[in-house]
Amino acid sequence: MRAPGDVYIVGAGPGDPELITVRGLKRLREADVVVYDRLVSLRLLEEAPADAERIDAGKAPGRHTLSQPEINALLISKARQGKTVVRLKGGDPFVFGRGGEECEALTDAGVPFEVVPGVSSAVAAPAAAGIPVTHRGLADTFTVVTGHTCGPDGFALDWEALPRGGTLVILMGVGKLREIAQRLMTHGREPDTPAAIIGWGTTAAQTVVEGTLADIAGKAEGMRPPATIVIGDVVGLRRKLVQSAPADPPSRGQSSREGADGLALFDALTMEAR
Amino acid sequence: MRAPGDVYIVGAGPGDPELITVRGLKRLREADVVVYDRLVSLRLLEEAPADAERIDAGKAPGRHTLSQPEINALLISKARQGKTVVRLKGGDPFVFGRGGEECEALTDAGVPFEVVPGVSSAVAAPAAAGIPVTHRGLADTFTVVTGHTCGPDGFALDWEALPRGGTLVILMGVGKLREIAQRLMTHGREPDTPAAIIGWGTTAAQTVVEGTLADIAGKAEGMRPPATIVIGDVVGLRRKLVQSAPADPPSRGQSSREGADGLALFDALTMEAR
Repeated sequence: MRAPGDVYIVGAGPGDPELITVRGLKRLREADVVVYDRLVSLRLLEEAPADAERIDAGKAPGRHTLSQPEINALLISKARQGKTVVRLKGGDPFVFGRGGEECEALTDAGVPFEVVPGVSSAVAAPAAAGIPVTHRGLADTFTVVTGHTCGPDGFALDWEALPRGGTLVILMGVGKLREIAQRLMTHGREPDTPAAIIGWGTTAAQTVVEGTLADIAGKAEGMRPPATIVIGDVVGLRRKLVQSAPADPPSRGQSSREGADGLALFDALTMEAR
Repeated sequence: MRAPGDVYIVGAGPGDPELITVRGLKRLREADVVVYDRLVSLRLLEEAPADAERIDAGKAPGRHTLSQPEINALLISKARQGKTVVRLKGGDPFVFGRGGEECEALTDAGVPFEVVPGVSSAVAAPAAAGIPVTHRGLADTFTVVTGHTCGPDGFALDWEALPRGGTLVILMGVGKLREIAQRLMTHGREPDTPAAIIGWGTTAAQTVVEGTLADIAGKAEGMRPPATIVIGDVVGLRRKLVQSAPADPPSRGQSSREGADGLALFDALTMEAR
């Protein structure tokens, strides 16, 4: 039996392919096998070697391409074949990415692994919409939860215990926005607390809806995942900060987006590294 | 008067220079002026063009090289000279980086800017120590605060309101660790709650001290900034996950560190892009 290959659990970042880390891109370019999640940019997948095996582990809501135990088994099996495996996950592997479970499974199987962190959409999607999650005088703490934490089996979250002065960021919560907003108001948050929802944050398809706890669900009707919800006074900075984006060249802007410039760099890096 | 140049507010990531984003590195390589913080890797500064002006805006504890208003004025002044300015900040610009204040000042001055997010040490330093900030069954939420939030002027933080089931991450709190741990216990956290402190997370100088709320301050005596404190049941995963680091080549490991391999890639990218 050959020595097992290594597994790299890599955060792909929030959506914009250029927001992967330099280390993450390097690992991707060394991969024999890439096991990727649904929201990972196709542009990034092109960065893996042409002959690398690409496996879609993506989970659409309500439809599982591969279950978590199946993904764990796949990573172990490919590594035991001596392959260099990159597990490419949206955002950061340890921010609701179940990366910890994959690490546990690899540890139990004796397969060496490395975690390469990524930019989380919890911070980057609000930033791309002109909203800093912390800001002097407005929010000196932020809390990140998921819509899954918020139900459907009982809304396990301790709503009373969410820091009131801080920013609340909710990932994967767009389908439950109405209930979430209602819960927060029931538990003492003011109905006029500023709220925003950012769809496809940091990508060219980014959309932003802004409102208050009282009206955000109605305003965001029809928005679909992926989306990042941000609640708190920092949302009010958006109107001020978003106007200042450089207009030219097209790849520049308040939000970091892929443009002609970005693709050129990717191509240049690709030619260089191979 | 020339049209103002652009300002790029770039997150340098948690310490390891390869954990900057591809976009961030690109902006750095286009800079006429780099205004950098104290904790930014010198290795990253080498990535700016050889003739770029490098300005240390770093703030050592208790000693300010440049005040925040001075930094704001500097960014505006350089941009008005038509320069491409990169403001290089540790971690992410909007996670306690005062990036929002710089954006406000630039907006008020009519200077176009772009924010390039970065990997925050709030998530990446624990990850490099084998600690996922979220993990199924252990923590379904995490909250990030700073030691500055925790005092010295009154410990303004609402300690009662910190989510109990979740992970608490404290940045810039090493000097106040004893008071912070005491506060958390006074406000109902169990003394045996797992806690860890990671010094120089993700870098070759990384050190980790592990304990409980009751004993972490004593164990971490003598630790100096920069350090990330993580409190919660997820700390217990460390003993399991940290043992599985690939042993070879030297640049690989559970924690992402700079190695010969990493430098080679940086150099290769540098040659290519210039």
